[in-house]
Amino acid sequence: MGKGTVLAIEVKPEGREPVFLALVRTIINEIERGRLKPGAPLPGTRALSKNLKLNRNTVDAAYHELAMQGWLVTQPSRGTFVAMDLPDMAMPPRASPPQGVVTGLARPAAPGILRLSDGYPDVRLVPTTAFGQAIRRALNSAAFVSGSAYGDPRGNAALRDALSHYLRDERGLTAAAADIMVTRGSQMGLFLAASAVAEPGIAIAVESPGYPLAWAAFRAAGADVVGVPVDAHGIDVNLLETLAQTNASLRAVYVTPHHQYPTTATLGAARRMRLMDVARRYGLLIIEDDYDNEYRFDGRPILPLAARTDEDLPIIYLGSLSKLLAPGIRLGYAVAPPQILLRMADRREALDRQGDWPLEHALADLLADGTIKRHARKARRIYHARRDQMARMLEERFSDDGEFTLPAGGLAIWWRLRRGLSAETWAANAARLGLSVMPGLQFVLDTANPAEAFRLGFASLDNREMLRAMDILSRAKPVG
Amino acid sequence: MGKGTVLAIEVKPEGREPVFLALVRTIINEIERGRLKPGAPLPGTRALSKNLKLNRNTVDAAYHELAMQGWLVTQPSRGTFVAMDLPDMAMPPRASPPQGVVTGLARPAAPGILRLSDGYPDVRLVPTTAFGQAIRRALNSAAFVSGSAYGDPRGNAALRDALSHYLRDERGLTAAAADIMVTRGSQMGLFLAASAVAEPGIAIAVESPGYPLAWAAFRAAGADVVGVPVDAHGIDVNLLETLAQTNASLRAVYVTPHHQYPTTATLGAARRMRLMDVARRYGLLIIEDDYDNEYRFDGRPILPLAARTDEDLPIIYLGSLSKLLAPGIRLGYAVAPPQILLRMADRREALDRQGDWPLEHALADLLADGTIKRHARKARRIYHARRDQMARMLEERFSDDGEFTLPAGGLAIWWRLRRGLSAETWAANAARLGLSVMPGLQFVLDTANPAEAFRLGFASLDNREMLRAMDILSRAKPVG
Repeated sequence: MGKGTVLAIEVKPEGREPVFLALVRTIINEIERGRLKPGAPLPGTRALSKNLKLNRNTVDAAYHELAMQGWLVTQPSRGTFVAMDLPDMAMPPRASPPQGVVTGLARPAAPGILRLSDGYPDVRLVPTTAFGQAIRRALNSAAFVSGSAYGDPRGNAALRDALSHYLRDERGLTAAAADIMVTRGSQMGLFLAASAVAEPGIAIAVESPGYPLAWAAFRAAGADVVGVPVDAHGIDVNLLETLAQTNASLRAVYVTPHHQYPTTATLGAARRMRLMDVARRYGLLIIEDDYDNEYRFDGRPILPLAARTDEDLPIIYLGSLSKLLAPGIRLGYAVAPPQILLRMADRREALDRQGDWPLEHALADLLADGTIKRHARKARRIYHARRDQMARMLEERFSDDGEFTLPAGGLAIWWRLRRGLSAETWAANAARLGLSVMPGLQFVLDTANPAEAFRLGFASLDNREMLRAMDILSRAKPVG
Repeated sequence: MGKGTVLAIEVKPEGREPVFLALVRTIINEIERGRLKPGAPLPGTRALSKNLKLNRNTVDAAYHELAMQGWLVTQPSRGTFVAMDLPDMAMPPRASPPQGVVTGLARPAAPGILRLSDGYPDVRLVPTTAFGQAIRRALNSAAFVSGSAYGDPRGNAALRDALSHYLRDERGLTAAAADIMVTRGSQMGLFLAASAVAEPGIAIAVESPGYPLAWAAFRAAGADVVGVPVDAHGIDVNLLETLAQTNASLRAVYVTPHHQYPTTATLGAARRMRLMDVARRYGLLIIEDDYDNEYRFDGRPILPLAARTDEDLPIIYLGSLSKLLAPGIRLGYAVAPPQILLRMADRREALDRQGDWPLEHALADLLADGTIKRHARKARRIYHARRDQMARMLEERFSDDGEFTLPAGGLAIWWRLRRGLSAETWAANAARLGLSVMPGLQFVLDTANPAEAFRLGFASLDNREMLRAMDILSRAKPVG
């Protein structure tokens, strides 16, 4: 169908740009300028390579890249066409994306927008070669035939075994493979944890400010969420106790003790003891979300609450490899007492049957062969430097505008603004200048009482990007 | 590495056995007897063909079959080796699996047990090389950096686009990418579909006999399920209408019109019209599960109900690539009207945030480049032959024990036993002899009224396995 189609373009590589990327850029440009319209056919690679006097492999590579980026679609035996649904176009999408539970938190940033996330890792560091090889090994293994036909809703046995060793070595957490369940990501862990305790009308205490996607998961599982204030040292356990005394529906408490989300505070030893004591006395299940345990820069690592074995105090411990690798590589896990884990597994089977076998098998492999540990070490070093750089920049450029406590770990700085500065206005100004940044309003249960603060994720930005982000932040500062 | 390796064997075809299968059998025998140990190198195909005076294609075919079955692994540029992890020598699992919602349906068979599944595909046919390459391309693509940092809960845009084309070309279903949502598998599609309509107390009509994992998903989403009898032509629409008249809580009806699960009947044109008419008049949402559309052997393909565009009649259409590839490769999709799709996406975000980016991207690639279609064509041919073989064997060996209608498509035969034969007793006998087979009891809502039938999945068994399964079935037949 693309036969006879002519594409009148000129390909001029810029600087040391590879020719195929120059061709990619040129074609995107044609689409953006409207000269190539959605659905329009493109010439075949042979014709175009002849026409442009390029090697055919170059044209092949460019078409492939464009298809990957979503600009072109290839239809077997029909040819190559401009995609109907373009990635970067300014056109309004056909249907607007769903207005989800939290604006900005789980949403893609618009193209070209720089993003100070709530704490994403830098996906450019992912050991993609090792990961790709591990997937290939999984697919070619004899175990594929037996393993991929059916599955245990608790996940691949080899992965649960590898996680058991990993948690013991890295976090002092004694959990047998039988105590561990693999989830899609920690989001599913949150949903399943709440499902294991939720009956209509029960309540789960959560930190506020806190993690809105956890609240969404709990509500979706049928639970009410009740906020407990957080101060500079984490959740206020006295207020939790007051709540437990007055709210008879309270069944569980959700905490992020290692690096409180969003404030990054570490829950100190005394409060941890008090928290466990209150949970024990009021029969509360603790849901401990240890979402970025690997990233500890200062001081000694803190043992998870779940590292204390205590039959009287049930804890569901949630972790994730997605923060360690990439949010788009979905792999989380839950550690829980047997009866709770079985309830979670039953629920998981009903809503998602089982995990993806090649992915689980590959990650088992990468945990066992040390790739994950090496990656964590490398990422920790880089993020440590990025944390220090962001802290330095905030001090140099914005010392009058707010203050922060240097986080001992994690992937973000919680920056509290001085009185009179509105984080929301600042964020809105920044958005207009091409920077997405998350004001404290997004992390509170009671939006009438916003936290005048920003959660500034530093890990996903390299030097140049961080500089640009700080420049925009500077220009976007509200007058006040 | 395999150079110089000698394999001292003699290949003697039995009866009309093809030579390559005789070679397969001989090599398996060598491995089982321990003369070829896990990890041992095999001679190259050229050397072995010379040595055994066989055509090299014969040796190639045998090695390929052995690799498919998991006995051998081929390592590019290194050679062919006995697999480390042999298919029939599995160790007992460390912990017993949870007792889930349905015994046998989603459970791994014990090691060494032959399984007549409810209709699994043969995972040995999966184009693992192409799949592994696609994953690697996804990980190395420029899109990985932008795509894997965050995601749309409706799934990867390129995959939704590829599915849009696939559904149009293969099924006559007009659905724009914006009308499609990627799910983990059809199980999640079922859960989300029910979530989109469920409020406490509402009911969903389901076929009985029917698909218990759908019932589990609906119940987990908070809905009641009410059975509607199925006869030789699918769901009894008159009884559905009676139900709709008397049950004010009824909001939706779940159907498998293409190949009714478990009876394999295709819903005829007249009933389809009646079904849609009843749904329209009583305001029922139709949840159409088209779980194995690709496998149509006889007659013309049937258009999905969802191919009719009708604003008055909302349909959630569910499909899966897991039946096409492997149950352990989790990828399903839902097509639904915009408002319903948005509710499903919100719910999905709360319980699972987003899909796995590399997997979604790779499958987009394999759909777009025709690999999936080619695989479907190949699998259809093989399963067609396996259906015919199983039908022949049932007629030859068990003509007095039951009867069946040759299914026009799908991956299983519904075999109704003659009066006096208990499917459950037969299944229990078979289990003791090492064969897992699923009696009708597992598919009915009202277990006091079991269907005396078996659902016999034929697709996942090769010649030898099917023969063995039929032998065991024969020996296990209850006296009665």
